[in-house]
Amino acid sequence: MGLSARNKIKGVAKEIKKGEVAALVKIECSMPADITAVITKEAVEELGIKVGEEVTVVIKATEVMIYKE
Amino acid sequence: MGLSARNKIKGVAKEIKKGEVAALVKIECSMPADITAVITKEAVEELGIKVGEEVTVVIKATEVMIYKE
Amino acid sequence: MGLSARNKIKGVAKEIKKGEVAALVKIECSMPADITAVITKEAVEELGIKVGEEVTVVIKATEVMIYKE
Amino acid sequence: MGLSARNKIKGVAKEIKKGEVAALVKIECSMPADITAVITKEAVEELGIKVGEEVTVVIKATEVMIYKE
Amino acid sequence: MGLSARNKIKGVAKEIKKGEVAALVKIECSMPADITAVITKEAVEELGIKVGEEVTVVIKATEVMIYKE
Amino acid sequence: MGLSARNKIKGVAKEIKKGEVAALVKIECSMPADITAVITKEAVEELGIKVGEEVTVVIKATEVMIYKE
Repeated sequence: MGLSARNKIKGVAKEIKKGEVAALVKIECSMPADITAVITKEAVEELGIKVGEEVTVVIKATEVMIYKE
Repeated sequence: MGLSARNKIKGVAKEIKKGEVAALVKIECSMPADITAVITKEAVEELGIKVGEEVTVVIKATEVMIYKE
Repeated sequence: MGLSARNKIKGVAKEIKKGEVAALVKIECSMPADITAVITKEAVEELGIKVGEEVTVVIKATEVMIYKE
Repeated sequence: MGLSARNKIKGVAKEIKKGEVAALVKIECSMPADITAVITKEAVEELGIKVGEEVTVVIKATEVMIYKE
Repeated sequence: MGLSARNKIKGVAKEIKKGEVAALVKIECSMPADITAVITKEAVEELGIKVGEEVTVVIKATEVMIYKE
Repeated sequence: MGLSARNKIKGVAKEIKKGEVAALVKIECSMPADITAVITKEAVEELGIKVGEEVTVVIKATEVMIYKE
């Protein structure tokens, strides 16, 4: 995928919760924690994202923070 | 960590590149791809982030997109 | 808090409005205007954020804009 | 200002550091901590932002996180 | 508008869908595709945004990604 | 492109300015104003973005603000 966003992580949609405008999708990636995304309900429906399907999580590097204990 | 950001992934800082204002940090997480963060150089220096150190990647759920083939 | 986000402002949760997915929280900080946050309802519930409680507002510097008249 | 961004905080530019592309501006607001913004150097120059000038910090509510101890 | 956000595109609000917290607004700009914004319902109501009205889309440059085939 | 980001606008890269970490790319779209993106220099180089090339601007709907006079 030729997208400038630096972070692309493959996973499987595990849970989808739709509000009126927003939708929350939990993606099980091959790592300890799942990834949670809040995207438009419209995107969930237009892409036809369903629980159990393979998806790729995409995150622009400027949105990533670092925490150090 | 009591932060509302939904996504926290542990990893190890692998590469740090500093510009004048921004800094790019690559974090090796326990998954196929590394995570790339663009944060301020000030944050890298104040937190004392160094290559080889354990850090936690933090991402707000509203910043996560989903790609489906 | 060892988080790369540059902006941390202490305040008190003043108003919480929950939608299906998103929640809006108004935080009264020691300044003229309140801060408004839209976070997931899940975060509000997992952190147990309640009106009257002390919280810290956290904002990544790349998300801040400047307006000049 | 008729902008949908919910958070607007008046302050005074206190420090400006320019990189090649990005610029970091610290704004002293009437609260304990300063606000740090990373915006384009182009914006700093086109708006003519200078240390000592009054500016307004603008933040979209979806970019605000909450931390609770 | 003296805002550091680099991208300002004039258009006409075409569709508004309100959830409990978020609202989705489609703006018809003078280009092939419409622009979709997710802002707070509060902003839609305080600014009095109505279908058919002229508005300006505002986007911070750090939020823009580039895709190349 | 099966990406949840709601806004995709075709254009032509018109100007590229590289810093150490960040890069600023101006894209001429078929509308009055150009779109400005700040992405990593790494992305510009890995995707091989060059002035004169067709690219698609991608923006998540939660990053779009609305201004009304």
